[in-house]
Amino acid sequence: MVRNSLGRELPESFNGRQVVPYQDPYSLQPDCNQATRPLRRINPDQEKVLPNLREAIIAAGLKDGMCIATHHHLRNGDALLGAVVRELDALGLRDITIASSSIHPVHAELIPYIEKGVISGFECGVNGPIGEMVSRGELNCPIIVRTHGGRARAVMSGQVQIDAAFIAAPSCDSYGNMTGAFGPSACGSLGYAHTDARYAKKVIAVTDNLVPYPARSFAIQQTLVDYVVPVESLGDPSKIVSTTTRITRDPVGLQIAKYAAQVIETSGLLQDGFSFQTGSGGISLAVADQVRQKMQAGNIKGSFGCGGITGYFVDMLEEGLFQTLFDVQCFDLKAVESIGKNAGHQEISADMYANPFNAGAVVNQLDCVILGATEVDVNFNVNVNTESNGLLLHNTGGHSDTAAGAKLSIITAPSIRGRLPIVRDEVTTVTTPGATIDVIITERGIAVNEQHADLKQELQKRKLPVKDIRELQQEIYSVTGKPRPLEFTDDVVALIEYRDGSIIDAVRKIKT
Amino acid sequence: MVRNSLGRELPESFNGRQVVPYQDPYSLQPDCNQATRPLRRINPDQEKVLPNLREAIIAAGLKDGMCIATHHHLRNGDALLGAVVRELDALGLRDITIASSSIHPVHAELIPYIEKGVISGFECGVNGPIGEMVSRGELNCPIIVRTHGGRARAVMSGQVQIDAAFIAAPSCDSYGNMTGAFGPSACGSLGYAHTDARYAKKVIAVTDNLVPYPARSFAIQQTLVDYVVPVESLGDPSKIVSTTTRITRDPVGLQIAKYAAQVIETSGLLQDGFSFQTGSGGISLAVADQVRQKMQAGNIKGSFGCGGITGYFVDMLEEGLFQTLFDVQCFDLKAVESIGKNAGHQEISADMYANPFNAGAVVNQLDCVILGATEVDVNFNVNVNTESNGLLLHNTGGHSDTAAGAKLSIITAPSIRGRLPIVRDEVTTVTTPGATIDVIITERGIAVNEQHADLKQELQKRKLPVKDIRELQQEIYSVTGKPRPLEFTDDVVALIEYRDGSIIDAVRKIKT
Repeated sequence: MVRNSLGRELPESFNGRQVVPYQDPYSLQPDCNQATRPLRRINPDQEKVLPNLREAIIAAGLKDGMCIATHHHLRNGDALLGAVVRELDALGLRDITIASSSIHPVHAELIPYIEKGVISGFECGVNGPIGEMVSRGELNCPIIVRTHGGRARAVMSGQVQIDAAFIAAPSCDSYGNMTGAFGPSACGSLGYAHTDARYAKKVIAVTDNLVPYPARSFAIQQTLVDYVVPVESLGDPSKIVSTTTRITRDPVGLQIAKYAAQVIETSGLLQDGFSFQTGSGGISLAVADQVRQKMQAGNIKGSFGCGGITGYFVDMLEEGLFQTLFDVQCFDLKAVESIGKNAGHQEISADMYANPFNAGAVVNQLDCVILGATEVDVNFNVNVNTESNGLLLHNTGGHSDTAAGAKLSIITAPSIRGRLPIVRDEVTTVTTPGATIDVIITERGIAVNEQHADLKQELQKRKLPVKDIRELQQEIYSVTGKPRPLEFTDDVVALIEYRDGSIIDAVRKIKT
Repeated sequence: MVRNSLGRELPESFNGRQVVPYQDPYSLQPDCNQATRPLRRINPDQEKVLPNLREAIIAAGLKDGMCIATHHHLRNGDALLGAVVRELDALGLRDITIASSSIHPVHAELIPYIEKGVISGFECGVNGPIGEMVSRGELNCPIIVRTHGGRARAVMSGQVQIDAAFIAAPSCDSYGNMTGAFGPSACGSLGYAHTDARYAKKVIAVTDNLVPYPARSFAIQQTLVDYVVPVESLGDPSKIVSTTTRITRDPVGLQIAKYAAQVIETSGLLQDGFSFQTGSGGISLAVADQVRQKMQAGNIKGSFGCGGITGYFVDMLEEGLFQTLFDVQCFDLKAVESIGKNAGHQEISADMYANPFNAGAVVNQLDCVILGATEVDVNFNVNVNTESNGLLLHNTGGHSDTAAGAKLSIITAPSIRGRLPIVRDEVTTVTTPGATIDVIITERGIAVNEQHADLKQELQKRKLPVKDIRELQQEIYSVTGKPRPLEFTDDVVALIEYRDGSIIDAVRKIKT
């Protein structure tokens, strides 16, 4: 066992890989070259279209022990990963690692294939039942959870070597030019798949909408694509929306949003050139709504919105409150529609969005991000991976990336969730280090990280309910009581990788 | 000495590099990995803007013997390469290789720096006086001429390692997002620079138009750019136009164009989905005009035009005769204007355009290309590099790439140029192998390569003046007389590299 700088106990290695303990958010430097792959040649008389996934798996030369990837832009509507795994099984392949950009509850369909040994590990975070079962020790399947930027880094650095990337392509021509903007399974941005297309040993475009050459626009280009496979359907785009996309009506949420908007205003960042990211939850949208009103009132012209894009941000683009949306994934169908027609709504790769190991990601230019939490602690560390029951239920997404990049990173969360206090002595799992979190906002008050004494003072001057984080914690504990500590075994079932590749925490099997 | 399959005598090595003799257009397979470079990390607090080129050269760590690159989208209006070389000299650097995408007559300003030893070689073709002086033995400076696709291949394969790429960016933000579509030095596509941005060890964006972050669109993205340098001016975009952009009025040229259009029609390719490339010369545009009229008359909807794009092709896009323009460089200011506003006018990299060693370039999908020649020979080999005086005066451009890719590659040329016959026993220099040339058209007749017996028969049926190439040659010789053979020394001053990296010919110093 080793301890990282946050005091988290880590195994020295996991699933055969040496663990690098997390030290701090910014100092770890890359010490390797960009990943590479063999150059290939496709002559004018060669075709790329194959009749089905099975032929593509064979053509790609997939073998036992190899690694595949898909992207999660169709989120809970994705049908491709399940279809690929069924074909892997049919071909008798075993011990396959999944390095997709994320796994969703729909992928519970993979569970029998994990049990059968077709799938032996996830080089990606998982949302839903697979993580829960792994946490309970009911599935033996190591998981390495990565941020969106960290995944791009892992692929670009060769840490994760994808043998075959299967890219769901809502619109694709016979030579592999593809976009997510059009077609019956349109999902908008293909941001997570860009890196796969550049670094996977073999790249297979899978489409339910084969269009004449050339596709009218392309997010991923023909030169990167080995094979094109037409299928009946990629899935159900109506299931892209997996959380609420309406502004919360809950008074607690509205109070938090109001505080958040006041903090942003107080920070001095809300001026021409303002850049902003929120998630898609009800509180996030309520903050966006407050900010939008302040921008309209002050005639403030923002520069960009980024991250997962909602229809709400599309409205702000169309109103001229943003000049650009940098879209790594569309969170709803309004965003999908916009990306195909609005030149200011620009698709970007996860590398460009959030990779710490390139010449500067978009998150580095971000003024303010609004983030959620399942728990925070008195050192401002944030957990979004496990719930307070200790179960691994959520992927990290861009949480740690944006927190590290933004000038002002704000956590918004109700002070009590499911009768449990949001502020803990220690979070169950550290997803994002407190060093990158500036403010935590609950309906009971606002805690400002020590490094921002000026902001704290200014908020106090404006009579906002600034509280010391421990004071806020005690106030919440006085209602909820002190939560009972969780009991875990020593078995590490997952690692939480920080964006730079160091390990910020380990997830252990719960005691049952 | 070795001979390649075309019988051309080559040195066994040149400038320290082993020569791979050309064998045939399609069989050489890549046997290496994609080039790589160290990963880097730029944290949120780091800036990229440097005060001037000198600081950028220092920051990039350029040393004696290293290699730099620029792109040639401003063509004869480029001011950047000269400015960089002056700074290299001022810093005392010597023995620098230039691996720009092309060199133009304006770069005669480099001659004193070649003489002084600042520049010791060109890993690219040269247009104008430098090649002439090298051919005469007046400059000692080895040159390797590459096709546009071959240059992308050379950079991607690591054959050419660029230590620092200086990219003229007509519009660029402080984090390096750049486009050529806007700004006082707008040149349109930055197609040749894309590969440099991905593979050069250091990437420096140089701009005379620094815009607020984020630039409203980007052809090359921030994650690839190390430094940004503002300068007074990148050059004079009015000099992008280096040849005529008007349809020829010369009756010889018009006759050739008419034949060419009839050959295309006869080939059966001129139907919905037709794709087409021509250059910017007067005969090329006359062919385009004929084809346009036939498309209009037949209500034919083409798929794409590609290559260097002229205003003429922009008109065809706007008329709906093409659905897409794949633009690797803009040949005139009308094309520059179009690329910034027409979504169907798409910028592509030289890699996507023409690289033989990727998963399929655009040229592989091309139906028909119209190309020029300084000479052709009875084996259909084409010379565009040297003139009939033996002087190296022209770069290859996309000539060999499109000839290899297109279903129908047509050479158009007047039968006599400067009193010299266009058809020779042997071309002075082989640029493009006859195996990839389908038809040669002069005003005196049409020669069809043997491999297209069907097309030949169909042309004869339509009463077009089809002639055996030797018959055509003799007819021209009867007017011009047999040209005197040129006299060369044994000194090889340049290599003509075929697109796959093999050497198709060598250029020798002329006897003076």
